[in-house]
Amino acid sequence: MKDGNPEPLVLRQDRGHVARLVLNSPANYNALSMAMIDALGAALDEIATDDNIRVLILAAAGKAFSAGHDLREMQAARQDGDDGRAAYERLFSRCATMMQKLPALPQPVIAEVQGIATAAGCQLVASCDLAVAAEGTRFGVNGVNIGLFCSTPMVALSRAIPPRAAFEYLVTGEFMDAARARELGLINRIAAPEALAAETMALAEVIAAKLPAAVRMGKRAFHAQTRLGLGDAYAATGAVMCENMMRADTAEGIQAFLEKRPPDWS
Amino acid sequence: MKDGNPEPLVLRQDRGHVARLVLNSPANYNALSMAMIDALGAALDEIATDDNIRVLILAAAGKAFSAGHDLREMQAARQDGDDGRAAYERLFSRCATMMQKLPALPQPVIAEVQGIATAAGCQLVASCDLAVAAEGTRFGVNGVNIGLFCSTPMVALSRAIPPRAAFEYLVTGEFMDAARARELGLINRIAAPEALAAETMALAEVIAAKLPAAVRMGKRAFHAQTRLGLGDAYAATGAVMCENMMRADTAEGIQAFLEKRPPDWS
Amino acid sequence: MKDGNPEPLVLRQDRGHVARLVLNSPANYNALSMAMIDALGAALDEIATDDNIRVLILAAAGKAFSAGHDLREMQAARQDGDDGRAAYERLFSRCATMMQKLPALPQPVIAEVQGIATAAGCQLVASCDLAVAAEGTRFGVNGVNIGLFCSTPMVALSRAIPPRAAFEYLVTGEFMDAARARELGLINRIAAPEALAAETMALAEVIAAKLPAAVRMGKRAFHAQTRLGLGDAYAATGAVMCENMMRADTAEGIQAFLEKRPPDWS
Repeated sequence: MKDGNPEPLVLRQDRGHVARLVLNSPANYNALSMAMIDALGAALDEIATDDNIRVLILAAAGKAFSAGHDLREMQAARQDGDDGRAAYERLFSRCATMMQKLPALPQPVIAEVQGIATAAGCQLVASCDLAVAAEGTRFGVNGVNIGLFCSTPMVALSRAIPPRAAFEYLVTGEFMDAARARELGLINRIAAPEALAAETMALAEVIAAKLPAAVRMGKRAFHAQTRLGLGDAYAATGAVMCENMMRADTAEGIQAFLEKRPPDWS
Repeated sequence: MKDGNPEPLVLRQDRGHVARLVLNSPANYNALSMAMIDALGAALDEIATDDNIRVLILAAAGKAFSAGHDLREMQAARQDGDDGRAAYERLFSRCATMMQKLPALPQPVIAEVQGIATAAGCQLVASCDLAVAAEGTRFGVNGVNIGLFCSTPMVALSRAIPPRAAFEYLVTGEFMDAARARELGLINRIAAPEALAAETMALAEVIAAKLPAAVRMGKRAFHAQTRLGLGDAYAATGAVMCENMMRADTAEGIQAFLEKRPPDWS
Repeated sequence: MKDGNPEPLVLRQDRGHVARLVLNSPANYNALSMAMIDALGAALDEIATDDNIRVLILAAAGKAFSAGHDLREMQAARQDGDDGRAAYERLFSRCATMMQKLPALPQPVIAEVQGIATAAGCQLVASCDLAVAAEGTRFGVNGVNIGLFCSTPMVALSRAIPPRAAFEYLVTGEFMDAARARELGLINRIAAPEALAAETMALAEVIAAKLPAAVRMGKRAFHAQTRLGLGDAYAATGAVMCENMMRADTAEGIQAFLEKRPPDWS
């Protein structure tokens, strides 16, 4: 896809304050090749410093969201002098770094998912803050079927859904349908396939209409407090509440509410 | 409410071994003002040392359980010399201290919830051990709608329901209905509105009929082991099981079971 | 059961690469007496080093899976000079050690559950990696009903299901039916009673057909990363992915997939 084809691996489409990144390698089901991981990481770095963007949608071109790592590329690395070890270390390290950019991004990220999201593709969904999926989407951490247990996808998945359900999918390699994915907490909403992009954008616009600074403070605080004990979590978030209250635009938001008028956040 | 009105902010109604605290500021939807937080904290301190009380119900007068912090009071503090910073630090610190009294209380606490429970009001529900809600109750962590992200309510909520569902409500400001709240694990039971008090009391009486010392040991052990690794959690709870076994009333409870008769715990 | 009866407390039945351990004390509902705990622990130690075994099913003879600790044995220890303290310390310590053998076992473990699984019997189910239950099975952590709060069973249960649901069952002593147990995440599948053994074996055989080394690496990685922060969890599992990729049988698995043929793992 890279040579002889000017089409970039990741497209960016902005609409107002919402950015939409599109994995653009439909021919191989948006495989997370080294090049794709790097392209996506670079696109996320750009979004992170773009003050105009309030919400990110992570979408994918074609029939599938992503089928995970690029198995052809991985097999090719076996020809290296070290049988691929250095390439694999680089791949999993760089992929984990990219995945962690998603919770670390200042803006909330919504996965827009269709077709299949398997292995590292499922990890990508679970690493976004929220997810909307088309009816009929199938999720899987099914590397075990080809002898490669989804150990890294498990990190994101087992923090999103109950442990025994996560283990079941990891060890059986079976697919999870969209209804079960919502029941378990992996995705937030299910849309008709033809309405997927519109419903995801509608959710993004709900969030983009909030006070951006409050959303950013909140997202950072959310991920920061997850694993803390109760006392530490309250100390951390109490300080955030204070900073939030000290803002002039928050003062306006509260005053507007008390006066039963819309806030003037222009 | 405080001046010129002898009505206290928190009412206490005991029935047998069950205490029922009632937030009693229906005119402002039981806002968690500084005075309300202090009154509730003081009432909890009394319950904590009351050996007659085996279960606490936390209820609220009027149409709403609680709409969260007192926004008028918070806006007024902006007139302070420091634009309110000291007042906000005090508010969030004292509120967090009060919220943590609920899991720390020796007796199990059941929230009895109607109308709405939003922002710090939702945090209060999530800080109780159990919750019963009337059909039609709506929950929300919707401070984001007025520019104040619910960072402290998030601490209690994100420990009660799956993370991605918690984040969805935090960032969209949308309401969660009672059915969804039960599905996600925020509440335990749903009652018809006219049966709310009776069903909550019935649940309290089920718990109050158990051996009080066992319930107290169990509640303390529950919260103590939550975040420990498996080995540490077993070491901690194994010691609790031992102490529990050494009790004469537990000996009687087990013996009664073996003899197919009710225990004599009088 | 031990003297005068040649029947062992735990039966082992192998079928291909699946081992099935059967609690074999139906007369006392497979109570987890000291002897039963030791017999089960010893059987697990044997399985752990048996390279032929890829999956373990933990089943039980008779109408009930297990009703928990042996209350008669526990009451008898009150005649000891120390009123039983040393016996109880030994019991809970040895039981916790045995329970922790289940997640530590190299092979995935599936509980096959019928009738009731209460107190330490429920803990045993929650300590297995996966569980299949017959319709009509009832789960409980109902020691509180006899004055002995299920503090150790709580360790396993509160890591399997949402906290407020766990606390509800612990403190009310009420039963959880199979449908609710699946909804909450305690069990993975529900089978018709007459199909329980067959459906559990079918699930075991799905797992046994995977590459055994990948399943073992995955199970170990799953439990190792559970409580780590995101960065540490990725570091740990990234190393596992690398080791998994370096295997010749994984190379064959991936190559077979790319060539659309079954892998040759013979």
